[in-house]
Amino acid sequence: MPNVPVGQEYATRRLAHEAGVHRLLQAGICGTKKKGAESIVVSGGYKDDEDYGSVIIYTGHGGQDSAKKQVSHQTLDDSGNAALVTSYLEGLPVRVIRGKHDSPYAPASGYRYDGLYRVTNHGRKLGIDGFLIWQFRLEVYDGAPTPQVARQQELRVTPPAPADSGAAAVRGNKASERVTSTVQRIVRSNAVKRQVKDWQDNRCQICDLRIEVPGGSYSEGAHIQALGSPYNGPYTPSNVLCLCPNCHVMLDAGAIVLGDDLAVIRGGEVVGTLRTHPRHAIDLECVRQHRERWRR
Amino acid sequence: MPNVPVGQEYATRRLAHEAGVHRLLQAGICGTKKKGAESIVVSGGYKDDEDYGSVIIYTGHGGQDSAKKQVSHQTLDDSGNAALVTSYLEGLPVRVIRGKHDSPYAPASGYRYDGLYRVTNHGRKLGIDGFLIWQFRLEVYDGAPTPQVARQQELRVTPPAPADSGAAAVRGNKASERVTSTVQRIVRSNAVKRQVKDWQDNRCQICDLRIEVPGGSYSEGAHIQALGSPYNGPYTPSNVLCLCPNCHVMLDAGAIVLGDDLAVIRGGEVVGTLRTHPRHAIDLECVRQHRERWRR
Repeated sequence: MPNVPVGQEYATRRLAHEAGVHRLLQAGICGTKKKGAESIVVSGGYKDDEDYGSVIIYTGHGGQDSAKKQVSHQTLDDSGNAALVTSYLEGLPVRVIRGKHDSPYAPASGYRYDGLYRVTNHGRKLGIDGFLIWQFRLEVYDGAPTPQVARQQELRVTPPAPADSGAAAVRGNKASERVTSTVQRIVRSNAVKRQVKDWQDNRCQICDLRIEVPGGSYSEGAHIQALGSPYNGPYTPSNVLCLCPNCHVMLDAGAIVLGDDLAVIRGGEVVGTLRTHPRHAIDLECVRQHRERWRR
Repeated sequence: MPNVPVGQEYATRRLAHEAGVHRLLQAGICGTKKKGAESIVVSGGYKDDEDYGSVIIYTGHGGQDSAKKQVSHQTLDDSGNAALVTSYLEGLPVRVIRGKHDSPYAPASGYRYDGLYRVTNHGRKLGIDGFLIWQFRLEVYDGAPTPQVARQQELRVTPPAPADSGAAAVRGNKASERVTSTVQRIVRSNAVKRQVKDWQDNRCQICDLRIEVPGGSYSEGAHIQALGSPYNGPYTPSNVLCLCPNCHVMLDAGAIVLGDDLAVIRGGEVVGTLRTHPRHAIDLECVRQHRERWRR
């Protein structure tokens, strides 16, 4: 949000809505399966929620009666839940707005915009009320908690972090939330990559695989020639391919190069041809430079 | 380095050697193909090097004559270059020691330990002297430059960052080094994951694929049950599998679950059996909890 500082407070949901921070007045998740979740409100509406400040365990939408009691299973048919799955698959940032609730990180009253988080894992769980719920783990997007949350985290007493020896079984708990989150994969889409992935409908342009998972399909936007020094690839769709993770690793590490005719070359042998899309021009200069980079 | 603060200075290579910060007296890269590079010295020994502070373009080892002129191609047979490829493939941190050289980020004299970097891409390039060299792009490990480098970066005048519109082709240059590095994939190995990957020799336990790339092979250590809330998987080899990236995505996002007999289940159908290793016990409690998490 360009005009909204992290930490901005709103007395009511309507004011947050008018500011565009969370555009829905009732629902906790604002977003669609297609575009992902743009914002969520964390305000204690679901008893399975957990709020550790820079980590939030957020319960999906649905299955409650009018008294907020869980009376049925949650599903991915709900656009809010499906949106958070898309946010996970695409690595998209989600705005977090905390409302007053039973958490040391919640505002004393009203609502507060707490910046960007990302969904780092998700899945179903038998909730406290005995029905299956969806849960989403959100972590602060770039590793640094927002100022308010950081201050409150400092005020909390935490035991020493367990050593990273791998010998002891470290079961996660409130105190160790931050140390147990080892980075495994962060793949972020942006407008350029999403355009290419949309053209290809998440199907790998090299091996034709589309990875289907509950709630969506998965692919990665891969730069042909890497951005920045020393390769200085351009930041355009013509330098991006839609690939499965395996082909992406092979392209990045030089196991796959492309010919000027878009032949797919592995170990010096042509093994196929890149699948293209009429609207997706490929920058042959990038193709050539990437091939040069792995000259044998 | 537990006892060495970032920014520690050493008058000579021998003192850095004695402190254990860079254990070799001559070579710029300390490490092996097997274990990766533990440290590098950036001191202007190769004219193709580029030093942007939090980003370093580092030229591999070899091919120079006694007058430091490049006289032949560099190869991955050199253990230093192969070590940096392993650091890339494993996502391992590399200690950076800067020596005095023509860079605003270099110390005025002697050597300085500048903390941890990671290799974000690499490849060959025709060097200034007309021979193929290996080059490695290193970026500050956790996004924050070391205090000395940050101070020097602040002192430099930089033009405004180009907008992230995707419309304009942003060719990397010294000023825009930081904005062009979009995160694509960060996969970090640690002792637990490396043990499992060693047992499996980087071959996927689900689909049997081993991804071969120049200088090595690639696999990922995947937690069966995610660490931290709400799943609280243990931090042990028995909760880790060696997988190709595609099977890893499918395990994490619920497209693959395992049976108690280690059957591989996709879309409700048994499609195979997990390959195991005699020394690698699998925690069936994790298997069961992961399966529960994706109950249909």
